[in-house]
Amino acid sequence: MTEHGGDIYGFSARMGIPRNEVIDFSTSVNPLGTPRSVIVEIRQNLKNLIHYPDTNAHNLTKELARLCGIDPDSILCGNGCTELIYLVPQAMHFRGVLIVQPTFRDYERACRIAYPECFVADYMVQSDQTFDIDPQILIDRAVGSRIDAVILCNPNNPTGRLLERDGLLAVAQALNTHGIYLVVDESFIDFTNTQSITRAVSANSHLIVLRSMTKFYALAGLRLGFGIFPIPIAKKIREYKEPWSTNTLAQAAGIAALNDKGYRDHTAKIMTRQKAFLEKGFRRLGIEFTPSAANYYLMSTPHARIFIEKLARKGIIIRDCSNFKGLDYRYLRVAVKSARHNRFLLECLEGCIG
Amino acid sequence: MTEHGGDIYGFSARMGIPRNEVIDFSTSVNPLGTPRSVIVEIRQNLKNLIHYPDTNAHNLTKELARLCGIDPDSILCGNGCTELIYLVPQAMHFRGVLIVQPTFRDYERACRIAYPECFVADYMVQSDQTFDIDPQILIDRAVGSRIDAVILCNPNNPTGRLLERDGLLAVAQALNTHGIYLVVDESFIDFTNTQSITRAVSANSHLIVLRSMTKFYALAGLRLGFGIFPIPIAKKIREYKEPWSTNTLAQAAGIAALNDKGYRDHTAKIMTRQKAFLEKGFRRLGIEFTPSAANYYLMSTPHARIFIEKLARKGIIIRDCSNFKGLDYRYLRVAVKSARHNRFLLECLEGCIG
Repeated sequence: MTEHGGDIYGFSARMGIPRNEVIDFSTSVNPLGTPRSVIVEIRQNLKNLIHYPDTNAHNLTKELARLCGIDPDSILCGNGCTELIYLVPQAMHFRGVLIVQPTFRDYERACRIAYPECFVADYMVQSDQTFDIDPQILIDRAVGSRIDAVILCNPNNPTGRLLERDGLLAVAQALNTHGIYLVVDESFIDFTNTQSITRAVSANSHLIVLRSMTKFYALAGLRLGFGIFPIPIAKKIREYKEPWSTNTLAQAAGIAALNDKGYRDHTAKIMTRQKAFLEKGFRRLGIEFTPSAANYYLMSTPHARIFIEKLARKGIIIRDCSNFKGLDYRYLRVAVKSARHNRFLLECLEGCIG
Repeated sequence: MTEHGGDIYGFSARMGIPRNEVIDFSTSVNPLGTPRSVIVEIRQNLKNLIHYPDTNAHNLTKELARLCGIDPDSILCGNGCTELIYLVPQAMHFRGVLIVQPTFRDYERACRIAYPECFVADYMVQSDQTFDIDPQILIDRAVGSRIDAVILCNPNNPTGRLLERDGLLAVAQALNTHGIYLVVDESFIDFTNTQSITRAVSANSHLIVLRSMTKFYALAGLRLGFGIFPIPIAKKIREYKEPWSTNTLAQAAGIAALNDKGYRDHTAKIMTRQKAFLEKGFRRLGIEFTPSAANYYLMSTPHARIFIEKLARKGIIIRDCSNFKGLDYRYLRVAVKSARHNRFLLECLEGCIG
């Protein structure tokens, strides 16, 4: 299995810090914690653990369809978005892909597991262009390559950069014309001020959108994601899908979460305030960071290793981004957390610099 | 996705019977329900849903290793045994398999998903031999075929028949000599009076044992399984495994379950009593059934369709086994449930016959 952030279990053991004292800035999960409405629903469903999960996640799918205004047959739920990230290249038999880098490492891993000889090309966005995608360059690169699909993450992990809706739809349409699939992982879209492109799927036979409920609703430990597919593709993916993969509690939690508008509004407010607070702090400390549409920041400093070590001693984990393609030892990712934790992070960063 | 038992969600909707009034004899889950100790542990871990699961399930693996007396590096946990059933043929690149039939349909599906051209041979056990495996015939069939692996379920689903330890170990040893893998799914072994062959793995480089905690500990909705592999194979499987697949609550539940000896003892008592009760009832009603080492019975009656329909009207689901290879419309599987439910089943069966 690949190296990710969020290994609080390993960190706690290594550092000898009790798990509940670890402050995890390395994963980008909503600092409000799991919504209370969701916890209530989970508790009420503990009696249902004796039954196998609904393998089609019928009720959750119906609710997603209703709220997104799309056909339930175009939706598949998964054991986290991760299940779908691995399932798509397997079911779609991708023989060549273009991945917009630097990004989540599991896209490439999933393609290589599905087909070891998979041709993987990279469109490397550049730090001197704030890691932004140029839609026309992306289209040209895709159309000129021997690839079946483009995979991109929007907003991108770990840069936090967002390809705006119009640009993304232009890419989707151009690729559709050329018979190239576009897989957009919108795992962090709920943290942005932009709408998902979910509704564009029904009119584009080559567009796949993956969504996560793990990050925004702080359900990382329970695993919940979903994908929106053109209906013939959803059918194909079902042929490859394991039964019962989305557990009963995750399905119940998902429905409750979707109906918690108060939590969503509260999150938006907190995010605006805390992002402004962190950005001001980074500027004051002279720490370089990439402006982010998401709930995390990519920072860059020649002293990254020292930061990691000094913060670890304070019980803080941050994400070392040196293992992302196109990034190096200078890059770190930190999540936007609660006011108290963000203040503590800035204090500790000041200590690293001082 | 394939057709399985246990679709109480679909059944409830189809029949217009509230879900909590459905009596599910179609899945073979411990009638004692989820252990109280496990529910307590799950509740205590709800606060940890904000964190990603430990992708290596370190603590659960350590506990399994301790209790089974094996090396933790030989263990992998999964999102139910199902995850491992699908992962093994994918990681092991099985090009040909021999499956002991009739059995759980997903073995064949998993092999075909991993490798669509997979050569699948069947060793069909016969009803006139109480569906028993003849170890020597199995060995001869395996050695004479162009296969990489034999897959069998022990005790077998849906027959309940057990290949005794000595016979199974003889098969494992013979296959090892011939460089053929043996994958034994022991999902229901905890319900039998026999020991798992888990400990034989360390001395057999071609033996893979899959275990489930879903059935015995009534955690079907939460998903939890594990596999025991020769260490080089465990390493290989890790290269193919998705991160975070075993959720945090399942990992915590697993540890609590393993430490609940009282629940295990209680289950053994209930099973002995209730199996005797059901068998006596079947005999009294003249219903043919296969003697079972597990917590379910394969019944056979020319009136199977009528049984299914009449029982459904009483809110009872049983497993129509006509879609198992080698079985036909006459075969039904029923779980061993609580005294009250078993009594009700027999009453209703009497009604079907009368």
